[in-house]
Amino acid sequence: MYTIDGAASSWVEDSSDGDFPIQNLPYGIFDAHDSRLRVGVAIGPYVLDLAAIHEAGLFSNTLLADDNVFAAPNLNALMSKGRQAWTQARQRISELLVADNPVLRDDTDLRNKVMWLQSKVNVHLPVAIGDFTDFYSSKEHATNVGTMFRGKDNALMPNWLHLPVGYHGRASTVFISGVDIHRPKGQTKADEADAPSFGASRLLDFELEMGFFLGTGNKPGEPISIDQAKDHIFGMVLLNDWSARDIQKWEYVPLGPFLGKSFATSISPWVVTLDALEPFRVDGPKQDPQPLPYLGFDGNGAFDIQLEAYIQSEKMSEPMRLTATNFKHLYWNMFQQLAHHTVNGTAMRDGDLCGSGTISGPTEDSRGSMLEICWKGTKPITLPDGSQRKFFADGDTVIIRGWCVGKGYRIGFGEVKAKILPAS
Amino acid sequence: MYTIDGAASSWVEDSSDGDFPIQNLPYGIFDAHDSRLRVGVAIGPYVLDLAAIHEAGLFSNTLLADDNVFAAPNLNALMSKGRQAWTQARQRISELLVADNPVLRDDTDLRNKVMWLQSKVNVHLPVAIGDFTDFYSSKEHATNVGTMFRGKDNALMPNWLHLPVGYHGRASTVFISGVDIHRPKGQTKADEADAPSFGASRLLDFELEMGFFLGTGNKPGEPISIDQAKDHIFGMVLLNDWSARDIQKWEYVPLGPFLGKSFATSISPWVVTLDALEPFRVDGPKQDPQPLPYLGFDGNGAFDIQLEAYIQSEKMSEPMRLTATNFKHLYWNMFQQLAHHTVNGTAMRDGDLCGSGTISGPTEDSRGSMLEICWKGTKPITLPDGSQRKFFADGDTVIIRGWCVGKGYRIGFGEVKAKILPAS
Repeated sequence: MYTIDGAASSWVEDSSDGDFPIQNLPYGIFDAHDSRLRVGVAIGPYVLDLAAIHEAGLFSNTLLADDNVFAAPNLNALMSKGRQAWTQARQRISELLVADNPVLRDDTDLRNKVMWLQSKVNVHLPVAIGDFTDFYSSKEHATNVGTMFRGKDNALMPNWLHLPVGYHGRASTVFISGVDIHRPKGQTKADEADAPSFGASRLLDFELEMGFFLGTGNKPGEPISIDQAKDHIFGMVLLNDWSARDIQKWEYVPLGPFLGKSFATSISPWVVTLDALEPFRVDGPKQDPQPLPYLGFDGNGAFDIQLEAYIQSEKMSEPMRLTATNFKHLYWNMFQQLAHHTVNGTAMRDGDLCGSGTISGPTEDSRGSMLEICWKGTKPITLPDGSQRKFFADGDTVIIRGWCVGKGYRIGFGEVKAKILPAS
Repeated sequence: MYTIDGAASSWVEDSSDGDFPIQNLPYGIFDAHDSRLRVGVAIGPYVLDLAAIHEAGLFSNTLLADDNVFAAPNLNALMSKGRQAWTQARQRISELLVADNPVLRDDTDLRNKVMWLQSKVNVHLPVAIGDFTDFYSSKEHATNVGTMFRGKDNALMPNWLHLPVGYHGRASTVFISGVDIHRPKGQTKADEADAPSFGASRLLDFELEMGFFLGTGNKPGEPISIDQAKDHIFGMVLLNDWSARDIQKWEYVPLGPFLGKSFATSISPWVVTLDALEPFRVDGPKQDPQPLPYLGFDGNGAFDIQLEAYIQSEKMSEPMRLTATNFKHLYWNMFQQLAHHTVNGTAMRDGDLCGSGTISGPTEDSRGSMLEICWKGTKPITLPDGSQRKFFADGDTVIIRGWCVGKGYRIGFGEVKAKILPAS
């Protein structure tokens, strides 16, 4: 782990406010309208071009010296170098950006080569994702959904408190923020209908989630233990698990969600490292019953990450907040999720993505999906443009933002934002 | 489509018997103990090295002339060239191998460069698999399992006759035949127990399936219609969907199978093209009720592929047959599966794999899993070594074979074979 002093500051202008101070240094993939995808790190309103930094010889004497893993269209090569290399990279980048280091600060030519305004570049999906898994680890969310469909007394399934329930998602449809989403079509069946019908989904929802990227995988038959999990996780993003509730409801028995989810998952572009998040570890919810030993976790397994979601219809001039919740509410933490995922010997790969599941908090205004916010359509919300929503309408833009609050700085995730296009 | 005359024969010795006559020409990935993975085609007991054939200029005047897609560690580059290129490749390969063509037949030097005995090479996973989806398309299998767990009257879920139920599987653990499988560990809960316990699965099962590889994918929001499906499917393999029934039973509600399946899926090494299978198309089961229009299929959607599975314990000198079934029993055909999979706009990629689901036939001796063969453990089978099985024991080898019978020849899939190693 390499934590940067909360009091540190950078010579980069406008880098002390907002999501990307020197304490953050999240990785992403960008091009500067030159079709050359490479790794960058966000600092203030800029991207630092790490491929160019490497070419300039500034990663010498690190584990990354020989191989320019930054001149790649995804983070996978960097990831595969492992925890020690990640720490060295972070250390080197922070040294270059810290206020009193003249190497970049005073070299206008070099600085002009390696610094780009974020507003002037394109960002891309940061990782070549092998497999995408989605968990279901918020007790409040599982309880809300269970109560709606099975009643309060049977809300949680018998397995829920014993293991982090999860399922395989679809990797090919994970999109970067800004890629708009077509409303899916599919089979649905009204409760009173004799037979299903085909058409555009009428119950299009979001799920406020976060995702973690596995940096390094494991071999078949060699689980990642809960103690090792931390060293395998590279970093985190915001994640919107788009859900068509009507398609999902008809199809999901007995093998789980399929086309109700597979059309799209949106993620934020900047991968915030576990190193940057280290100061924000907190106790998670008390687990009762005690998990089996392979899931046993001592210490701070949760992270204090504030999360908000917003809606903006085409008639609205600015977004309206839908909910405010926190990543720390999750019952099962990431280390438990990863230990569980591999305990059967499943081989995971560098760059695999795991979603947290919808993150709902304990209060009504901290629910993480329209299904819960509008309680199965029974409590519609009114937008500033006067229209009502139970689920999303075409033209609605959905935004999720997240950040950690440090002393005098914040570690932000930026946002994941996408607009709903009519069914094609 | 390019079908090779059933009466055609090749100059390659021993190529008229067995799985790989000139009418088959399945693709695989091999190396000749030189760490150089490339594309080959199986012909009789040999592999024809297509990378070397391309280097020799023998793919000139085809869509593949400029780019040696065969000098690659997987079939994805060939796949991405599309249906017309696949047809041209098949045509060119068959021309080179047909009995009266002297180009290779009479050129000993060239022949020695491009022909390898299969027994002298290593085969590898043929495709870089993006996503793996597994369907559940055998009515007999779904009925058997449903009857066991919910009784005869509620055997099929309400959605089953209306859509090909499927779920996302895990791509990182698809292994080639010959890779042995560790018995998974995991959480299970006995019906009478108060709490779950952790240990090696005691109910390790196979599922006799086939898989199809998507050759070319689709763009987000642009479904592959049922009429287009044929041109997107590259070919098929045998598939064993390993299943730990006790882990699956405890975890699968409500999001479907996860760790009960994710540890391993085994496939056969040679991808038999849809072109080679064209002569074996037959009518599938009558579908009642009539599927919705997007799933409507006229003509022969099924394929007559004979399938058998075998067990061999460490004490047995040869395998014993467990079951004999046929791919044609599947209720939902591949074209319907693919149309359904993409109807919501899901983007699929070149090289994605779709499993059929367990293929059980209408009779007791055509069931495709130990769960069904031994009817939930109530009808154990006795092996020639005197031991009994309800599910598999450590050291058991499980083999699936498949073939189509033509007039005077057969199109074989070879086999998928793996041994069960003790839990690690």
